[in-house]
Amino acid sequence: MSENKIPYKIYLSEDEMPKTWYNLRADMKNKPAPLLNPGTLQPMTAAELEGVFCRELVQQELDGDTPFFEIPQEIRDFYKMYRPSPLVRAYCLEEKLQTPAHIYYKFEGNNTSGSHKLNSAIAQAYYAKKQGLKGVTTETGAGQWGTALSMACGYLGLDCKVYMVKCSYEQKPFRREVMKVYGASVTASPSETTEVGKKILAEFPGTTGSLGCAISEAVEAAVSREGYRYVLGSVLNQVLLHQSIIGLEAKTALDKYGVKPDIVIGCAGGGSNLGGLIAPFMGEKLRGERDYRFIAVEPASCPSLTRGEYRYDFCDTGMVCPLAKMYTLGSGFIPSADHAGGLRFHGMSSILSQLYADGLMEAVSVRQTDVFEAAEYFARVEGILPAPESSHAILAAINEAKRCKETGEEKTILFGLTGTGYFDLVAYEKFHSGEMKNVVPTDEDIARSLAQLPKVD
Amino acid sequence: MSENKIPYKIYLSEDEMPKTWYNLRADMKNKPAPLLNPGTLQPMTAAELEGVFCRELVQQELDGDTPFFEIPQEIRDFYKMYRPSPLVRAYCLEEKLQTPAHIYYKFEGNNTSGSHKLNSAIAQAYYAKKQGLKGVTTETGAGQWGTALSMACGYLGLDCKVYMVKCSYEQKPFRREVMKVYGASVTASPSETTEVGKKILAEFPGTTGSLGCAISEAVEAAVSREGYRYVLGSVLNQVLLHQSIIGLEAKTALDKYGVKPDIVIGCAGGGSNLGGLIAPFMGEKLRGERDYRFIAVEPASCPSLTRGEYRYDFCDTGMVCPLAKMYTLGSGFIPSADHAGGLRFHGMSSILSQLYADGLMEAVSVRQTDVFEAAEYFARVEGILPAPESSHAILAAINEAKRCKETGEEKTILFGLTGTGYFDLVAYEKFHSGEMKNVVPTDEDIARSLAQLPKVD
Repeated sequence: MSENKIPYKIYLSEDEMPKTWYNLRADMKNKPAPLLNPGTLQPMTAAELEGVFCRELVQQELDGDTPFFEIPQEIRDFYKMYRPSPLVRAYCLEEKLQTPAHIYYKFEGNNTSGSHKLNSAIAQAYYAKKQGLKGVTTETGAGQWGTALSMACGYLGLDCKVYMVKCSYEQKPFRREVMKVYGASVTASPSETTEVGKKILAEFPGTTGSLGCAISEAVEAAVSREGYRYVLGSVLNQVLLHQSIIGLEAKTALDKYGVKPDIVIGCAGGGSNLGGLIAPFMGEKLRGERDYRFIAVEPASCPSLTRGEYRYDFCDTGMVCPLAKMYTLGSGFIPSADHAGGLRFHGMSSILSQLYADGLMEAVSVRQTDVFEAAEYFARVEGILPAPESSHAILAAINEAKRCKETGEEKTILFGLTGTGYFDLVAYEKFHSGEMKNVVPTDEDIARSLAQLPKVD
Repeated sequence: MSENKIPYKIYLSEDEMPKTWYNLRADMKNKPAPLLNPGTLQPMTAAELEGVFCRELVQQELDGDTPFFEIPQEIRDFYKMYRPSPLVRAYCLEEKLQTPAHIYYKFEGNNTSGSHKLNSAIAQAYYAKKQGLKGVTTETGAGQWGTALSMACGYLGLDCKVYMVKCSYEQKPFRREVMKVYGASVTASPSETTEVGKKILAEFPGTTGSLGCAISEAVEAAVSREGYRYVLGSVLNQVLLHQSIIGLEAKTALDKYGVKPDIVIGCAGGGSNLGGLIAPFMGEKLRGERDYRFIAVEPASCPSLTRGEYRYDFCDTGMVCPLAKMYTLGSGFIPSADHAGGLRFHGMSSILSQLYADGLMEAVSVRQTDVFEAAEYFARVEGILPAPESSHAILAAINEAKRCKETGEEKTILFGLTGTGYFDLVAYEKFHSGEMKNVVPTDEDIARSLAQLPKVD
């Protein structure tokens, strides 16, 4: 059997690493809807976007036709410091589950940011530097994106201002400290450093902040300063473009051994990892070359695909950012205090939303305690302590593998292991002590949140 | 230039991974001195050691002649989950330093234990399992060893009891929590679970514990239980044998590209990493095949090689363990509250001590704040957040590279990057805030500690 020749970990050589990103939109018949200007409700123009984002990133954001974008040599050199990431054959997990399924995972956690976020952070920082900017601003909730951007900026000598949601700032001092090691300035949001921050603090003196508020502060900090732009770690088309490196590497590695996955699984918050992982496989499906099942896994506490509505909505709670057409729970939706901070976004990337609307992708939602049970099981069997976000995909992959055991089908499953859980041990502790709860929104919660949105379509 | 062909990271294929460990003692003309029974002061016999350690590990401990030990298939399979570890060419660091030196590092941090300790943990757990034991006990200070052993035992389904120094237990709740994820029971030491623990608590009610006390508790917990043995993560010959995988992989990777290091550098606490990294290179030197410079880097706060005495001493503070002949500061020596917990052992492995006594290896000691400065510099340039322990080697490597810049010599430097600093951010924070101190023992401190030792030689 050729299977015996497949190593535990497939590493590409540096020559085999992708030299281009793949723009999935180029193969989509139904393109994702454009971003709208929150004032005029007209599609955002390049000129409008360039006030907030770097020039080349705006081009990538708006370009739905060019299938491949060359990865600049400087970014490829940076990628070589922590990529190619391993494609792992989960032999131990297969044996433990006694499943006929073959399970592979693309592991993106072997870098100091601890997740796939670095793939887009270095690209966005690079274009900012190339444009001659002084620095960038951003927000971070769980902290993965802020850490990744700090690393990229530290490497390029670019100033980096991170607005960190206050409750995370206080609960995750280590995340904050890593960013400082890389030279970033980290501000608890809301803060007195912006007008919007001051306003919120005056209105809600004791608030511990929210992602929506941190976005508003970061945007203000960028547009009110000479030589700064705002950057974002998920949702946007440009981010999915950069993250296609995940899927391209995975596909090249599998192709080397003649392996074709039947099912591709990823966790889904804003969509950066899932969109990147599935990109080249979905491209084949869109071009009619091969069929795959794609499964987006989201938390039951924040189920934008499975229980949201497909419509235009703001990307931020403050309703100052452009509107995107997406599956959304409403920009005012506040998910329960879940421990998968990276999946607590109210909407889903426009690209993934369109694919889901077109029936090209499935979605499931899973309960937090089940996720942590899968996480711990995986840690003991495969050795890696997974991030709570990544563990959503682990749970779905295990469920599919168990189904194969029942049916006797020898399916090939590929999932994205986006990151490590070293900074999530408070959550693991809550799971162990039995304190972890599963709080799921009611239909009324979601309806109430959606009812507050302006009608655009 | 052939140099251009050397990738950023050299990964061996699974076929190229070592199938045997290398026993450096076999090539040493002056063998390391044997362990002595603390009661009789006679060399420990296999029978005596087997009361505390697993049978096969005792054989490895006592065998100074067999050059190679086959790595059992089960251990090789486990190694494949996180090995081969990358050998990294530090192109970015070289460029930043503007040095003609070529710098390589063997990175052992890409596994959940975060360090090289897993290499010996899985071996020791495997032999315990093979002997039909129920479980193992150990102590942990900084927590790397305890985490590694928990992972290995979790994988093999072996019970694992970790005695964690109480101040670490309280200061590092995340380390403790990782061990629990892997199913280990973690007890703050001193505890009421052992006689020696009770005695210490009665005598010093408010004590926050010490490594020496935790060792005593772990040993008692093993010998007082049916089906348990004690395991240790450094110092012992068997540990250096297992850790030779580091050096063997590094040498194979360099040999593939025809690269020969001029200088090999490692941090040195008990000696597990340094002994493993240098093993095959030192073997060549001992056999007269090639010359190398070897540099052990230790903290100025715990300078066993550079300021200690070469003599018999106890391995534990409680003076119940066997005596080893080693460079030591005295088993009663208490280093200042340094943040490189893994390097705070009072003595050095007998193998490395003998090599140092024979002039085959150099040693330097470095100050804590200089270490953290190098750590942060390295993090920004090479992307990896290093452990404080590992950063001792980084600092020495940077110093050697700077020397090359002055002299114009194109030397090849290899150092061991033993682990990551994700659980050491309290230390980084202290460094940033300027609170970090350099406390170095006086000559009187060391003399006083050594004066308390029994005369054996």
